[in-house]
Amino acid sequence: MTTPTLANDTFLRALRREPTDYTPVWLMRQAGRYLPEYVATRRKAGSFLALAKTPDYATEVTVQPLDRYPLDAAILFSDILTVPDAMGLGLRFVEGEGPQFERPVRDEGDVARLCVPPRENLQYVFDATSQIRRALTNADGRQRVPLIGFSGSPWTLACYMIEGESSRDFLTIKTMMMRRPDLLERVLSVNADAVVDYLLAQVAAGAQALMLFDTWGGALSYQAYPRWSLAFMQRVVDGVRAASTVPLILFTKGGGLWLQALVDTGADALGLDWTVDPARARAEVAGRCALQGNLDPAILFGGTSAIEAEVRRTIDAFDSPNVPGHIFNLGHGISQFTPPDAVTVLVETVHAYSRARAGTAPTRPASAAQRI
Amino acid sequence: MTTPTLANDTFLRALRREPTDYTPVWLMRQAGRYLPEYVATRRKAGSFLALAKTPDYATEVTVQPLDRYPLDAAILFSDILTVPDAMGLGLRFVEGEGPQFERPVRDEGDVARLCVPPRENLQYVFDATSQIRRALTNADGRQRVPLIGFSGSPWTLACYMIEGESSRDFLTIKTMMMRRPDLLERVLSVNADAVVDYLLAQVAAGAQALMLFDTWGGALSYQAYPRWSLAFMQRVVDGVRAASTVPLILFTKGGGLWLQALVDTGADALGLDWTVDPARARAEVAGRCALQGNLDPAILFGGTSAIEAEVRRTIDAFDSPNVPGHIFNLGHGISQFTPPDAVTVLVETVHAYSRARAGTAPTRPASAAQRI
Repeated sequence: MTTPTLANDTFLRALRREPTDYTPVWLMRQAGRYLPEYVATRRKAGSFLALAKTPDYATEVTVQPLDRYPLDAAILFSDILTVPDAMGLGLRFVEGEGPQFERPVRDEGDVARLCVPPRENLQYVFDATSQIRRALTNADGRQRVPLIGFSGSPWTLACYMIEGESSRDFLTIKTMMMRRPDLLERVLSVNADAVVDYLLAQVAAGAQALMLFDTWGGALSYQAYPRWSLAFMQRVVDGVRAASTVPLILFTKGGGLWLQALVDTGADALGLDWTVDPARARAEVAGRCALQGNLDPAILFGGTSAIEAEVRRTIDAFDSPNVPGHIFNLGHGISQFTPPDAVTVLVETVHAYSRARAGTAPTRPASAAQRI
Repeated sequence: MTTPTLANDTFLRALRREPTDYTPVWLMRQAGRYLPEYVATRRKAGSFLALAKTPDYATEVTVQPLDRYPLDAAILFSDILTVPDAMGLGLRFVEGEGPQFERPVRDEGDVARLCVPPRENLQYVFDATSQIRRALTNADGRQRVPLIGFSGSPWTLACYMIEGESSRDFLTIKTMMMRRPDLLERVLSVNADAVVDYLLAQVAAGAQALMLFDTWGGALSYQAYPRWSLAFMQRVVDGVRAASTVPLILFTKGGGLWLQALVDTGADALGLDWTVDPARARAEVAGRCALQGNLDPAILFGGTSAIEAEVRRTIDAFDSPNVPGHIFNLGHGISQFTPPDAVTVLVETVHAYSRARAGTAPTRPASAAQRI
């Protein structure tokens, strides 16, 4: 796909740590249940999976938040479990219980059968990607904002594949880690290869940036994380880099203690959750990548003045946009109970406040020790 | 209560960072459902609350793990929500759903009615404490091991009091934080006063060390944590210190980024979860308090050789007992599915390996930057 001119490339410039006039903003799960128009489309689709698997619907809900708010990026509407579903594990959603797999990966036979799924099993994702790109193109041929593709991390996919559903303590996968590390190693290797192939196919279909969601990396010990999550994210970074120059964002929820290891992967940006002081993150990352985050999604329940104050404080903490390379986001996905007007306040405040700040003198981040 | 001679004071000496012959060990939730004798007593009691509220039963289950394993401390069997229950909020346990309050704290009237509960409402806890002390006394008049008392932190209690039950995103309490900070401030002030009174009454009844469980502090942002959890734990530390010399352990689950602020409270020890590298913790704490932790409870599902290897690695990481001030524990409560024999392996390995290590040269912790 040829790259059309972007009407707004602020997000991509921030990812490259180039100067921008203001701080770009998008929100994890911005196409979601807090929007009445999303709920209407989902009702039309009949189920969450039908919504995710039908390119027309996926396109519709991906564009909805862009029509409502002046966001600086779109993110492909999909589920993080499309890849194991394409491996044949049988993804289903039970109302009020979250995702489940009909055939979880538990023994030697299950693991032996796993392989990188053929691209045609995920064609609906690539079709949606191309269709969203077209839907984002204005009458003048320019694309409104860049489109982000994504995947779950190899570890996070394995958590669902092996546990079979969401878990609090991850005892099944951790037991496999200790008793049959060879099996878990193979699951994660297949996942890493599958994720590379999946992300590169998204790029081929039109994704202009990529994000890896390591939702459950923070459940690992300080010793297990490098071996069982980070090492396989490194394989994804390397695999994507070998074939594409598209920027890649890594996000380990609960990974605030491991930022230096994360930046060592060579990722273009790190997502931060709201437990991480931006001053500490800036000191640890030391200008080697961009940073994305990190407002507590609960702030959106605080009313206009709380949202404005917290957005300003966050932008100040990143010294954004004077220190290039900050992308405003939440520290986790937006809550389904968020009042849509709160997002209007957030996006407008990010834009207006960072624009007003632009050109003021950058400040050096205090060391973590001073700030905590 | 006069202090009898302790047959085993290793735990208290480690808390004071005095040399010990080996590394002391106890386990969070060591009196719990993984023990068949606990399940039998609970069946006799009829319900979890009857178990916690009947001193005979609470004594029985507190002593059970000591009879099975050579643990170095006992911890009072109780629930972390006894204090808000004593405030009149109506604690109940719904099978499979965890604790709930019949009358959660939601509005100005609810908050105005809150006050430090009279000690008689918690008399069953203090009676259990005295009775456990007697039950721990050998025929020779010496006490087997010290008894730890505990409470939930003011913030953690408030989470349950305001949400009314366990929560994933804490939207109700965080909304109050932003929209009515005055109300939350008062809830936390009352909680801090109540917790100080509760802990001091436990000390009067015989508790020889105290632990504050800040189970939900890690749900706060880096900015909200100091104000809404840490500041009120500071009030507890100060209040307890003003009236007692009993050592106090603070544990914020998910608080690995905030260790320096936690040690600044003047607590005697910090609990660490398994995401924290002991080398980093030792560097940050710099000898100012003892450290307790931090094995992933899932390791107990790995079989004998995995447990032995991980226990040894953890003891090496703390350089224990050559660097005084390490208390071995899990990074969170023991799982109800743990095989009881796994705990035998854990406790024996902690004792044997640390005893063998004692007297070898201490090593300096590497800096966090080098280790991560």
